[in-house]
Amino acid sequence: MIKDKTAIVGIGQTEFSKGLAGDEVELASEAILNALDDAGIDISEVDGLASYTQEATSEVVLSQNIGFGDISYFGQVGYGGGGGPGVIGHIAMAVATGQCKVGVAWRSRKRASGAARRPWSKGASIQESIAVNHTRPFGMIRPVDEIAMLTQRYMHEYGGTREHLCNIAMAVRKHANNNPDAMMREKLMSRDDYMNARWISKPLCLFDNCLETDGALAAVIVSADRAKDCPHTPAYIHAFGQGFHHQHQVMQNFFCADPLKGPAWVTARKLYEQSDIKAADIDVAQIYDAFTPLILLSLEGYGFCERGEAGSFTENGNLEVGGKLPVNTSGGGLSEAYVHGFNLITEGVKQLRGTSPNQVENAETCLVTAGEGVPTGAMILRK
Amino acid sequence: MIKDKTAIVGIGQTEFSKGLAGDEVELASEAILNALDDAGIDISEVDGLASYTQEATSEVVLSQNIGFGDISYFGQVGYGGGGGPGVIGHIAMAVATGQCKVGVAWRSRKRASGAARRPWSKGASIQESIAVNHTRPFGMIRPVDEIAMLTQRYMHEYGGTREHLCNIAMAVRKHANNNPDAMMREKLMSRDDYMNARWISKPLCLFDNCLETDGALAAVIVSADRAKDCPHTPAYIHAFGQGFHHQHQVMQNFFCADPLKGPAWVTARKLYEQSDIKAADIDVAQIYDAFTPLILLSLEGYGFCERGEAGSFTENGNLEVGGKLPVNTSGGGLSEAYVHGFNLITEGVKQLRGTSPNQVENAETCLVTAGEGVPTGAMILRK
Repeated sequence: MIKDKTAIVGIGQTEFSKGLAGDEVELASEAILNALDDAGIDISEVDGLASYTQEATSEVVLSQNIGFGDISYFGQVGYGGGGGPGVIGHIAMAVATGQCKVGVAWRSRKRASGAARRPWSKGASIQESIAVNHTRPFGMIRPVDEIAMLTQRYMHEYGGTREHLCNIAMAVRKHANNNPDAMMREKLMSRDDYMNARWISKPLCLFDNCLETDGALAAVIVSADRAKDCPHTPAYIHAFGQGFHHQHQVMQNFFCADPLKGPAWVTARKLYEQSDIKAADIDVAQIYDAFTPLILLSLEGYGFCERGEAGSFTENGNLEVGGKLPVNTSGGGLSEAYVHGFNLITEGVKQLRGTSPNQVENAETCLVTAGEGVPTGAMILRK
Repeated sequence: MIKDKTAIVGIGQTEFSKGLAGDEVELASEAILNALDDAGIDISEVDGLASYTQEATSEVVLSQNIGFGDISYFGQVGYGGGGGPGVIGHIAMAVATGQCKVGVAWRSRKRASGAARRPWSKGASIQESIAVNHTRPFGMIRPVDEIAMLTQRYMHEYGGTREHLCNIAMAVRKHANNNPDAMMREKLMSRDDYMNARWISKPLCLFDNCLETDGALAAVIVSADRAKDCPHTPAYIHAFGQGFHHQHQVMQNFFCADPLKGPAWVTARKLYEQSDIKAADIDVAQIYDAFTPLILLSLEGYGFCERGEAGSFTENGNLEVGGKLPVNTSGGGLSEAYVHGFNLITEGVKQLRGTSPNQVENAETCLVTAGEGVPTGAMILRK
């Protein structure tokens, strides 16, 4: 087991914005150098690398640009937003088994810059694209359309409402309004704003959708032993799991016994099997939020409430700092930046360091998840 | 360390041919089912998956088609032929750390079928493609052109000759002529045939190039403990490493101090650092052979001879069964099948089982490498 054998000791990022100068290599380079600086580790020590299959930058190109050491581990994780904790967990395995000593995971995107925008299927297999094409004639054009249909089903089955989705959007916006790095820092949003926003794909409105962001982030992972020598409080990787169930279809998940039981359920089982920390012990959660309903599904999948109860779980400020389970305390993908969930990882680290702009008092444990609806991953960080 | 904690207990493949019926999903499915059958393990037990970033089939599509269990580990390895032992090693880490119990690695290709042929840059990052485009106007159109230039340099520096390359091509062809599965089973090749073959990219002729193959292969990895219950002799994954050096450029490697010191050197250092078995202890080697000179470079990189001595190492039948270091005993990518080196893995397992058509007597240790010239990987299997 990798339990507590490794830790995230460095985090770095670029500005989050639309129309940033520089290509993905420049953004990734800046984020990685910032993360190494934060870790107090020289770049020549880096010998392990992991990123997303959809990442536009490659290991060798980054090495040519910023100069890693000789690399002894490299790998990628697929399924877009499903890759977040995956890349951290894979490096954790490599460090824990001695295959590398200093691992760097990163993600850089220019989603907000039209000219540099990549087709969503970059890195997706040909068969995945074919599957998507089968549903396009029926109106499933974009990921949001697929998630909208899952949301309709959730509303039908469990009485979920737009009020519940609004609770989520408002909680994370509130966090973003207090986060100097968040793209939505200055943009206040009222319940009326939400309710009157334009539809993107019914029942999902503008504010149920994540941002389009240019930006990059990176994290540095070393052994628990080495972590003691690093300047910041280590965020120990306590447990990790990935998952998708045997009938899964990206990202609709329609062709199975229960479309609302997505990859989160399988992932949670593996995660908690590896973990001494259970759902009830988690102080703060960073839950992948390309769309607000993914948080509903994940709250149930990761065991914070029973099936069908996520809607009411969003009430009474439960998801805000001071509430039962503060969620996406940076503003997340909905209101800080959408970089395939990598900012959820760095925010998790900040909470354990005590340096979040929306600090949860005495936060000692943090769940970080990747995208629900696609093969996914999750990890539990602890102080 | 993962040393001896996991083993390959099942191998499977399809026919190797040109113009096979079925798409990559069908080929992959057949190979995976054969491998599980060989391992005596039901497909519902599969919970870990790894393949190449260039693989056309995806985890979810295969699961929909043949029905894995719930998956708790998935990952990919980049750089085409550099991925071979990488996918095995990554699963070995996941099994050794408890992230999954039954891992399957696979590769399926329809390289030999024009209609289904994928662009070589499938899965390559945009920046990698740009780097390649910079050299195209100067005649570096294909991978073979890049390796031809490295070969010229090798010949210039160390007096390597076409005779040496011919020794390699003939050794592996001889093995293929005795392997019922090999595409070149019936095709004899003399030294004259080699010397009179047409140029593909000088100094590389037709027979210095790997085959174009339709086919798929798969391997099943479990813990050493579980391996004892499987029907065949386990091939324990003794040591594993990946690597590329800090100045590396795919696949030319020109912009560094020593272009002839490619990724193999870095990988070998990591590999042997993890290993009780050193180069001198290796009974048989499966060395990635998209082009004959990659074997020259790898013989030096993995320490079977000194720098510049690989040419003479190919003499006196050293690379044939009965010689000093039998290499690619199935015929390899040059004469059995070219499926990004996955047949080198399965042949390594066969040697340790004692079931190779070109069995090395009492083979107890086998080196398997991935592509030299790209970020690569290697592993040592033992009985």
